[in-house]
Amino acid sequence: MKLYDFTLSGNCQKIRMMLSMLGIEYETQTVGLLDRDQFSDEFLELNPFHKVPVIDDDGLILRDSAAILIYLARKYGKPEWHPDDPAQIAEIQQWLSFSVNEVFNGFAMARALIIFKREGDHAAVVELSKHGLDVMEQRLKDHDWLALDRVTIADIACYPYTALIEEGHVPLEPYPGIRAWIKRVEALPGYVGMPGLPYAS
Amino acid sequence: MKLYDFTLSGNCQKIRMMLSMLGIEYETQTVGLLDRDQFSDEFLELNPFHKVPVIDDDGLILRDSAAILIYLARKYGKPEWHPDDPAQIAEIQQWLSFSVNEVFNGFAMARALIIFKREGDHAAVVELSKHGLDVMEQRLKDHDWLALDRVTIADIACYPYTALIEEGHVPLEPYPGIRAWIKRVEALPGYVGMPGLPYAS
Repeated sequence: MKLYDFTLSGNCQKIRMMLSMLGIEYETQTVGLLDRDQFSDEFLELNPFHKVPVIDDDGLILRDSAAILIYLARKYGKPEWHPDDPAQIAEIQQWLSFSVNEVFNGFAMARALIIFKREGDHAAVVELSKHGLDVMEQRLKDHDWLALDRVTIADIACYPYTALIEEGHVPLEPYPGIRAWIKRVEALPGYVGMPGLPYAS
Repeated sequence: MKLYDFTLSGNCQKIRMMLSMLGIEYETQTVGLLDRDQFSDEFLELNPFHKVPVIDDDGLILRDSAAILIYLARKYGKPEWHPDDPAQIAEIQQWLSFSVNEVFNGFAMARALIIFKREGDHAAVVELSKHGLDVMEQRLKDHDWLALDRVTIADIACYPYTALIEEGHVPLEPYPGIRAWIKRVEALPGYVGMPGLPYAS
């Protein structure tokens, strides 16, 4: 198993967490996003969207963190991570879609504008992020996990950019349910932190 | 089965197509997005993200078009629409994530800026859209379908906003593979068009 990786990427962090939690050994190849390595011909062949993570599992190439989480959970994990039941799998997908849209274009972008000095309207991104946090808080104020009654890949998909959001100058102080959930994720067997994660143990 | 619906929404169109292709009878309740019905207390209770589609299947409430497609395919369709195999389900998810991010924030936004006079940077959205179309074309120039070797929910998820993209002033003329795929989707049993679809039969 090979992970095309960039240390500061929250999307890569999802995969590093999942691989660790499933006990899968892997090697990494760094794709220097700040050096524009993701636009090399070699990498564009792997992912024309020029994004990390990408995995190569014995020749099977997969892009997109949500797709990779599904693959790893179903191939190497217990069915609890991503079950077959139509209603359960759909409930998880609601949060995977949230991680791909609101979390990535809100939470992650708020951080990218600050730490990578990306161009964009920070106030608009913060507003989008706060709405996303409100919806997460509404769920987590009286549930332990985002989907179902247990940890699933929905939690792994949403965790990194939520835990990192204060780097984007969006405070988590108003969200006690989310803060408790972050600690719950960080207490899972096999959890690994990343540099800069404000709540990393 | 009840669909909370808005006629001009491409995300709702995905669900209308899937319901029709699966032969499921349903009623609709219109949510007037232009009248801000999606911000009513009643609707926010169903979907705090204030978006359509939402379905109510005998009391089970689901939001998010990708999640609803997965639910309908797995509960009422043949496994070919959304199989259990880890690599196959992940390949489909790559395109579901694409439909949630690049297609929605690119293709759909280009159209919304024109037909709903939404505010935004049309040139930037067109650029994002063209990159998405390039990646689709790369796949479809020598494959009939986006994922696997058959129609799956990946095609249904990506079809409406692609077929509608010229309403956003993004020409499909440079993309023969995509145009052939659009015709292929429109020839599927149970296909239903929507008002304004340029390729609707």
